[in-house]
Amino acid sequence: MNSFGRLFRITIFGESHGQLVGINIDNCPQGILFSEKDLETDLNRRKSGAKGTTSRTETDIPKIVSGVFNGYTTGSPITIFFENKNIQSKDYLKLKKTPRPGHADFTANKKFYGFNDFHGGGHFSGRLTACLVAAGVIAKKIINQVNITSEIIEVGGSTNIEEAVNNAIKLNDSIGGIIKCTVKNLPVGLGEPFFDSVESILSHAIFSIPAVKGIEFGAGFNSAKMTGNEHNDLIISVNGKTKTNYSGGVNGGITNGNDIVFNVAIKPTSSIGKIQKTINLETEKIEDLVIEGRHDTCIALRIPVIIEAVTAIVLTDFFLIQKFREEF
Amino acid sequence: MNSFGRLFRITIFGESHGQLVGINIDNCPQGILFSEKDLETDLNRRKSGAKGTTSRTETDIPKIVSGVFNGYTTGSPITIFFENKNIQSKDYLKLKKTPRPGHADFTANKKFYGFNDFHGGGHFSGRLTACLVAAGVIAKKIINQVNITSEIIEVGGSTNIEEAVNNAIKLNDSIGGIIKCTVKNLPVGLGEPFFDSVESILSHAIFSIPAVKGIEFGAGFNSAKMTGNEHNDLIISVNGKTKTNYSGGVNGGITNGNDIVFNVAIKPTSSIGKIQKTINLETEKIEDLVIEGRHDTCIALRIPVIIEAVTAIVLTDFFLIQKFREEF
Amino acid sequence: MNSFGRLFRITIFGESHGQLVGINIDNCPQGILFSEKDLETDLNRRKSGAKGTTSRTETDIPKIVSGVFNGYTTGSPITIFFENKNIQSKDYLKLKKTPRPGHADFTANKKFYGFNDFHGGGHFSGRLTACLVAAGVIAKKIINQVNITSEIIEVGGSTNIEEAVNNAIKLNDSIGGIIKCTVKNLPVGLGEPFFDSVESILSHAIFSIPAVKGIEFGAGFNSAKMTGNEHNDLIISVNGKTKTNYSGGVNGGITNGNDIVFNVAIKPTSSIGKIQKTINLETEKIEDLVIEGRHDTCIALRIPVIIEAVTAIVLTDFFLIQKFREEF
Amino acid sequence: MNSFGRLFRITIFGESHGQLVGINIDNCPQGILFSEKDLETDLNRRKSGAKGTTSRTETDIPKIVSGVFNGYTTGSPITIFFENKNIQSKDYLKLKKTPRPGHADFTANKKFYGFNDFHGGGHFSGRLTACLVAAGVIAKKIINQVNITSEIIEVGGSTNIEEAVNNAIKLNDSIGGIIKCTVKNLPVGLGEPFFDSVESILSHAIFSIPAVKGIEFGAGFNSAKMTGNEHNDLIISVNGKTKTNYSGGVNGGITNGNDIVFNVAIKPTSSIGKIQKTINLETEKIEDLVIEGRHDTCIALRIPVIIEAVTAIVLTDFFLIQKFREEF
Repeated sequence: MNSFGRLFRITIFGESHGQLVGINIDNCPQGILFSEKDLETDLNRRKSGAKGTTSRTETDIPKIVSGVFNGYTTGSPITIFFENKNIQSKDYLKLKKTPRPGHADFTANKKFYGFNDFHGGGHFSGRLTACLVAAGVIAKKIINQVNITSEIIEVGGSTNIEEAVNNAIKLNDSIGGIIKCTVKNLPVGLGEPFFDSVESILSHAIFSIPAVKGIEFGAGFNSAKMTGNEHNDLIISVNGKTKTNYSGGVNGGITNGNDIVFNVAIKPTSSIGKIQKTINLETEKIEDLVIEGRHDTCIALRIPVIIEAVTAIVLTDFFLIQKFREEF
Repeated sequence: MNSFGRLFRITIFGESHGQLVGINIDNCPQGILFSEKDLETDLNRRKSGAKGTTSRTETDIPKIVSGVFNGYTTGSPITIFFENKNIQSKDYLKLKKTPRPGHADFTANKKFYGFNDFHGGGHFSGRLTACLVAAGVIAKKIINQVNITSEIIEVGGSTNIEEAVNNAIKLNDSIGGIIKCTVKNLPVGLGEPFFDSVESILSHAIFSIPAVKGIEFGAGFNSAKMTGNEHNDLIISVNGKTKTNYSGGVNGGITNGNDIVFNVAIKPTSSIGKIQKTINLETEKIEDLVIEGRHDTCIALRIPVIIEAVTAIVLTDFFLIQKFREEF
Repeated sequence: MNSFGRLFRITIFGESHGQLVGINIDNCPQGILFSEKDLETDLNRRKSGAKGTTSRTETDIPKIVSGVFNGYTTGSPITIFFENKNIQSKDYLKLKKTPRPGHADFTANKKFYGFNDFHGGGHFSGRLTACLVAAGVIAKKIINQVNITSEIIEVGGSTNIEEAVNNAIKLNDSIGGIIKCTVKNLPVGLGEPFFDSVESILSHAIFSIPAVKGIEFGAGFNSAKMTGNEHNDLIISVNGKTKTNYSGGVNGGITNGNDIVFNVAIKPTSSIGKIQKTINLETEKIEDLVIEGRHDTCIALRIPVIIEAVTAIVLTDFFLIQKFREEF
Repeated sequence: MNSFGRLFRITIFGESHGQLVGINIDNCPQGILFSEKDLETDLNRRKSGAKGTTSRTETDIPKIVSGVFNGYTTGSPITIFFENKNIQSKDYLKLKKTPRPGHADFTANKKFYGFNDFHGGGHFSGRLTACLVAAGVIAKKIINQVNITSEIIEVGGSTNIEEAVNNAIKLNDSIGGIIKCTVKNLPVGLGEPFFDSVESILSHAIFSIPAVKGIEFGAGFNSAKMTGNEHNDLIISVNGKTKTNYSGGVNGGITNGNDIVFNVAIKPTSSIGKIQKTINLETEKIEDLVIEGRHDTCIALRIPVIIEAVTAIVLTDFFLIQKFREEF
């Protein structure tokens, strides 16, 4: 389903090489000052063009076409578009019969019985994440007391990011990376048992970002190697502050007032310059595949701002939901 | 929210030390042969009592109280209970003012303004996972061509499970573990873009199991260290079979016909026999905490069957949803 | 789907002649004093036994089995059962091949491919409305400043209710009726555009009560005969009070602070003592049908309290939702 | 909430005097031939310009901006816009302090704390129904074996429509009307108990059309005056065909294979040319209100095609849902 959220609810649409991509945001509270100008900083952070990212530099000009009046959100749905302008669809024509390994070409074709728009990944394209970033900007404004930051902590297994990217460029290959996200200044009590724990909803949203293959909270996979005595975070204050933070700020699926901390694993981009093998679905023979389009050497470099956006969207929804419990 | 699923939808209720725990399953297809007898095997796998697990051995007798008629599911909601019988609530009385570290005691209290049932974790208890196991049995019957298996691959950082558990018992401590789940014989095309990718929905459900702190699909966190050329799985057959399976059976959020493979990190149980420190919320002083109840040394040992159940529930929903696309 | 509501969300289950019927209430705010005792008055109002109602007098003893602790709601799901005790299933065995006209026998059989529990209407039975009444009691407590009343204003086309019922009893027949519901003391601003107008959600819920065939708000069908100048309610105070109330308290789908007023049309019960004709699905011949069970001459007499309950449930949800807009 | 539907799910956005109004359609099956050309007939039926309708004749040119590729639906979300061109916003400026009686001016202002776009009704405008008509066209294509027709059967209490409209025009007033909708060629078995009966979901959707104040199925409010013996529709064929159709094609909330028949009451348009009274929210005094914009004398004339559209949308969703029950 192309919608996400209980109250603060986003719906995403569009294709990479169609007319536009866009997002609809329902139940944004009224009275938030909001304009296209607000989107610039975060959209620039996501933009390609830096070393290691694709040369497809969409102008990425957002248009807010509903839900804002006299500069403020109205309470009605907010819709934001990004028109697609820099499109070279011919690059992709051959991919329908020779699906790119690691990509959605094959699976989308089967799921939609061949009717999917396969150009540039169609609706599966990372281009749609521009919409998430836009929605994230509004979310950050709603919960402006909260501080969310994401950073790359490793690419291609190395902490020397520039070197690792340069090496991959030389090899005509791509590399993955790990992103760490930290959320500060949260209240105790966000998250909805049983199925909508903070980890459940965050991971749900994070895994909808293309290329994500893993997520861990707090000590995460290292928790599995620890004893309870080591892992249990000692509460040292009545407001819930803990001495350590192995739990990553969440107990029983609910925020405990300490920082939420989680790591996200990003796989290397599937589309690479190097010649690969794939099956030709018509001849049923393995053949060489040359992907001529423009690619990101390290898509992970562009993802921190998307993770921040998605995190802000999730937390905003938890904030709005928790409000119904006040004064009872 | 205590419900999960789009069509095949479960709703969970009850508290660890209340009258019962139970689950409601909506939109189970009609005509599935189903009785309490079917639940025995999986419920026994979850049951405590083995070395390393708690001595609270609830009889765990399920009662199917609606939705089954003449031995078959009717298409109406199926409701299953487990009455609580072996309850020693006095163990928990002191925990309200001295919250156990690593547990939901503190967060649940804050979230529900002190009105939550705190005995034995109340609604946050792992006891509710018996309900998931029961729903999983029905799900497995609906998608009976699919084969789902889970196994512990590591506890406390060791692959010698028995030894690691014995050590922890001696230390009066608990240990975590890693569980690997493999799903075989899936069709291509399950999963719903943009937000309901296979990874998104599986992780959402898996993180609602208490003690889960991480999940990774296919190569997972190792993906981040690989190049695209290494990671891309070569398609070697027109039905989508790949030579390797670094993607874990999912591309673009949609099953590709290969095995779904994922690992889950389980933290050590918070409740341990060892004396710990915690804050006394009344005196605001740190004091010793002795948790007298019965505990699992390694809760991870009981979780594989729960992960299987949750996976079956998720995949059943994807199967039922995908059916609307047939014949168009 | 057997669930209803966005935040304050109910899920209903059980069959008329199964073990029990029940309801689960998710997201009930914590801290509401609630016990079985609170349910008595409204359950008695719904109970059969008066002249014109069925002689099946279930004891209707509710059991609250989760979500209440020390007398107060906990914030976790509340589950309430009614065990079925007074069951005479043999009455219904022949109805599978000779479906009662006007009843769900035929449609339920087709929908669920013959697997539905057909005894006493199974999951389609009016017996499930006891659950709605129970949930309505909690809802009324949550929005206790609001006053909801329902009354029969006509049965069988007559305003002399007793006489009309007596006539129908003599004829061994059943009669319908019209119920008027009035809601006082509501704030301005409840209701959610575009699709979740007050009329939309109320009618959705009201039409799930068996036997309802029509609903109209304010002047309703008479509105269609009026001019705008007549119909427009003059606002006479800054708090929105109007001189007339042809709109029934709702403008643009949102409460305007005046009384919500609506009428509900109840058809005559399908099950009657009189001999009727129906088709025998095996012989494909029309034959006489004698329905031996116990029937309501005028089911409408039992429905006012159900309409109140459903109205309280709907309005509670609107109240809880609207809270997220405060303080922005 | 601005979304509607379980699988076939629409989301509506935009304001009457903003940049555009639009709709997003999720889970439209792939492979449906669809273009703007298909929308012409139904959009023309809704269009104003005939006697008795407003002179605001938007060009109503739809743009399909996502979800269609090479002429066919892709399975990804379909988004359709209507840009607003013929806007005279100055007409509405004074309405903020002197709310029009019978309109959402007052309620929307209170609900959204004054931040709503009040021009031309903003998001509450009947203009958004153009989007419903567009979505209805796709729905009709998906369930193309079904035949849905709506017609005006009465305006202003008269069946002489032209005369009644001419009278109202002379009076500078508006009039309401009644619309009858008939759906032919439906299978048995659509509709979802307990809360999503055919009547529940249809009424939910129908009441989101501005100006609707009542709905009745089959004999509707007349049912209340009938006896069971009169009202029960005799089944005369094994496929469920009945001799009469007082139930309006629905039993127990599920289609019985006969025509669905329902009537909808439309109130007179609130905006009239005649001078009215209203309160001035600043001076708190009653004063004369002249509404200078363009109005429909009889909005009911434009609504039949909208009712058809909404009905098609609802039934399509029921069709897609029911498919999961096949082959079990």
